Amino acid sequence: MKITLIVVGKTTLAEVKSVCEEYHKRINRYLKFEETVIDNSSIRFNDADKVKEREGELILKRISATDFLILLDEKGKEFNSEQYAAYVENLMLQSHKNICFVIGGAYGFSKEVYARANAKLCLSRMTFSHQIIRILFAEQLYRAFTIIRKEPYHHQ
Amino acid sequence: MKITLIVVGKTTLAEVKSVCEEYHKRINRYLKFEETVIDNSSIRFNDADKVKEREGELILKRISATDFLILLDEKGKEFNSEQYAAYVENLMLQSHKNICFVIGGAYGFSKEVYARANAKLCLSRMTFSHQIIRILFAEQLYRAFTIIRKEPYHHQ
Repeated sequence: MKITLIVVGKTTLAEVKSVCEEYHKRINRYLKFEETVIDNSSIRFNDADKVKEREGELILKRISATDFLILLDEKGKEFNSEQYAAYVENLMLQSHKNICFVIGGAYGFSKEVYARANAKLCLSRMTFSHQIIRILFAEQLYRAFTIIRKEPYHHQ
Repeated sequence: MKITLIVVGKTTLAEVKSVCEEYHKRINRYLKFEETVIDNSSIRFNDADKVKEREGELILKRISATDFLILLDEKGKEFNSEQYAAYVENLMLQSHKNICFVIGGAYGFSKEVYARANAKLCLSRMTFSHQIIRILFAEQLYRAFTIIRKEPYHHQ
């Protein structure tokens, strides 16, 4: 099993990229983890729905039929860290070849992407920039593995 | 009115520091914002309660009697970004000289700090490292001001 993270738009802040890379490296100790960046720099519409639609097409192109697709979405399920770790552990027990998390662009996901999704996950009821969400996702997935393995990173 | 952020422990990752500083600079466009770092490097106990107690003493030393004290705490109140902006706006209408947010150390707050607190705020049901929480706090406070001022940063 591997985990893929698809993000829409390049990480523009070098520091954000660097923090994410540190956690991605740590996650790779537990299983194969890859990040795919969708370049949305040529998508220039004034209409948010059109942006979402075009980004949605690019997202769906990267998803294969057997991928288990989880959207990072504010309407998604909220977990605390222990519950999230249990959720990830349970996913690993199922026979998914690839679990694919997606962090959308500034306007969110198209209805086509929602229709394909297997699950939606909410990291916070607050909205964070889609750049900052990358840090939250990476730290929390790393934390989940330390909880699953009972390693001394997470304090109750 | 000013806002102070007290954090326990130096920001060890240069990138985290850099991301926070960017948002602190932006917050300073709206009102006076200061960060105070409590050096906990000499606090070395195996007992988490002792660490919290000693850190608590250092926190309370920095708080003056008129400060409105808000702890970043997982048992705190959860808001979405609009609700948080309304909360901050309401605080600004009250006549607090200083609103003081505190991000605790790895083990949380002592009972003395809880006893002094005026409010508790939860940024996410998930636990994040107290370093990463600094980024969440800074981005969300900046976002709150852009929502209060109806500036084009936050997409509904």
